[in-house]
Amino acid sequence: MSMLIVGSVATDTVKTPFGKREDVLGGSATFSSISASFFTTPHIVAVVGQDFPVKYLSIFKGRDIGTEGLEIAKGKTFHWEGYYDYDLNTAHTVHTHLNVFKDFNPKIPRHLRNSRFVFLANIDPDLQYNVLKQMRRPKLVACDSMNYWITNKRKSLERLLDKIDIFLLNDSEARLFSGEPNLLKAARRIVSHGPKAVIIKKGEHGVIYFSRSSHFVAPAYLLEYIYDPTGAGDTFAGGMIGFLSKASRINDASMRKAIIHGSILASFVVEDFSVNRLLDISLGDIRARYKQFRRITKF
Amino acid sequence: MSMLIVGSVATDTVKTPFGKREDVLGGSATFSSISASFFTTPHIVAVVGQDFPVKYLSIFKGRDIGTEGLEIAKGKTFHWEGYYDYDLNTAHTVHTHLNVFKDFNPKIPRHLRNSRFVFLANIDPDLQYNVLKQMRRPKLVACDSMNYWITNKRKSLERLLDKIDIFLLNDSEARLFSGEPNLLKAARRIVSHGPKAVIIKKGEHGVIYFSRSSHFVAPAYLLEYIYDPTGAGDTFAGGMIGFLSKASRINDASMRKAIIHGSILASFVVEDFSVNRLLDISLGDIRARYKQFRRITKF
Repeated sequence: MSMLIVGSVATDTVKTPFGKREDVLGGSATFSSISASFFTTPHIVAVVGQDFPVKYLSIFKGRDIGTEGLEIAKGKTFHWEGYYDYDLNTAHTVHTHLNVFKDFNPKIPRHLRNSRFVFLANIDPDLQYNVLKQMRRPKLVACDSMNYWITNKRKSLERLLDKIDIFLLNDSEARLFSGEPNLLKAARRIVSHGPKAVIIKKGEHGVIYFSRSSHFVAPAYLLEYIYDPTGAGDTFAGGMIGFLSKASRINDASMRKAIIHGSILASFVVEDFSVNRLLDISLGDIRARYKQFRRITKF
Repeated sequence: MSMLIVGSVATDTVKTPFGKREDVLGGSATFSSISASFFTTPHIVAVVGQDFPVKYLSIFKGRDIGTEGLEIAKGKTFHWEGYYDYDLNTAHTVHTHLNVFKDFNPKIPRHLRNSRFVFLANIDPDLQYNVLKQMRRPKLVACDSMNYWITNKRKSLERLLDKIDIFLLNDSEARLFSGEPNLLKAARRIVSHGPKAVIIKKGEHGVIYFSRSSHFVAPAYLLEYIYDPTGAGDTFAGGMIGFLSKASRINDASMRKAIIHGSILASFVVEDFSVNRLLDISLGDIRARYKQFRRITKF
């Protein structure tokens, strides 16, 4: 079923202990749509500047990702520069140039307004809310956010949460949002704000899924080589929702499988810079790693 | 089958954000033997001073733990004082009074020398080695260690590792021992030093089991209340080895079940100070939590 992703398309300059890459393809809509494209045909709504390299556009086209909603605006593309030390869990930002993304006010093309699956990647919660207002009864809405909005747009975020199904955030954001250091209590409190479920992403330590009726805990897939963690969270989300959109029904069992598929996609993306690794793998590779994941977690 | 534990019996003064307890029962042999006692009849070899409260002795007797090897020496019992902040993963030591433990040189009573399962809790690796020399072909030997020995008695530790089956250590110790920040590579390197398997304990993030032929990753049981993490690692080890000692055979499947049982025991012990919670629960409680653990991790 149709999947809509609203977020950023950017160029990134990233340094890790394993190398540096300049002006590579990045952004939340990029990672999540390429990840989802293994399972479905996602459509992105985002904005780039006139400097955006056409070679990156062809990556989307090559994955059959709908770009009707990708606006090309006057100005420069959103650019992020950052680095990671050996603690690959923490991104250090050198600078963020929002450029055309600063005035991003997503308008959903008419034929995408009845998309059944919606991923609202991390942008201003008021904009996320406006997107939802344009949609016609989607089946599942997931959204991401970040510490900046939790601190500075709390009310807007709470208004949004009441309208969504799955709220994704990382462990420190979950603690910040809930004021609760214990993640189980944090999850319970977040769900009391309206979303049907929360997924707390713990990076190399896996994820916690918590809904009113069930909870699920999964470790991350163990990797020997992590070159660049940029985009892992969005890759997780895109893979998970993409998988769900193809499930015959959404229930606890398919939700868990979707979460593991999201983790598997994230485990691939960090094995190289930017989206390179995702462009390298097939559905067969994903299935093989899923099987291996079962083997190493089964008891 | 018979199980021998060599380690410390101590009194602890512990402060956490949830309270303070003075001179409560502690020590690696204490936590691990009480944990193991749910599955088997462990025997401890340790030393206490003449000030050791007899009420604590009766805890061992009450759990049918063999104390023939518990020496009562002239002087005072090993005493540790420490505290935890909200980051319950890190113990801060206020002071360590080794007292009679300083001259501990474990002599294994004759009838315990053919114990089939041996847990060498964290002591000087030369002493651990001497214990092994006294044993008659145990079926399984597990040992724990700590950063101090890794740094200061590296050679002794390596000599020991060549003789043991399972080496238990936490994530920072694994990185220290192997010089490798990536835990999968760290595990591989540790196993190359001789032990058949390594278990890397990541506290609230679960465990990694790594042997030459298999690896297994498990999250920790999610808890809403953690009052005192003291002894969690030893409780894990005792529960795991105790469970293994009752398994009809030792193979990959029973090893995984044993690891989860160790985690379950650890999840209980942190719910109260000292060993209090362990004295509170039954095998039925352990089985119920094991089932719940399967439910929340299954996919």
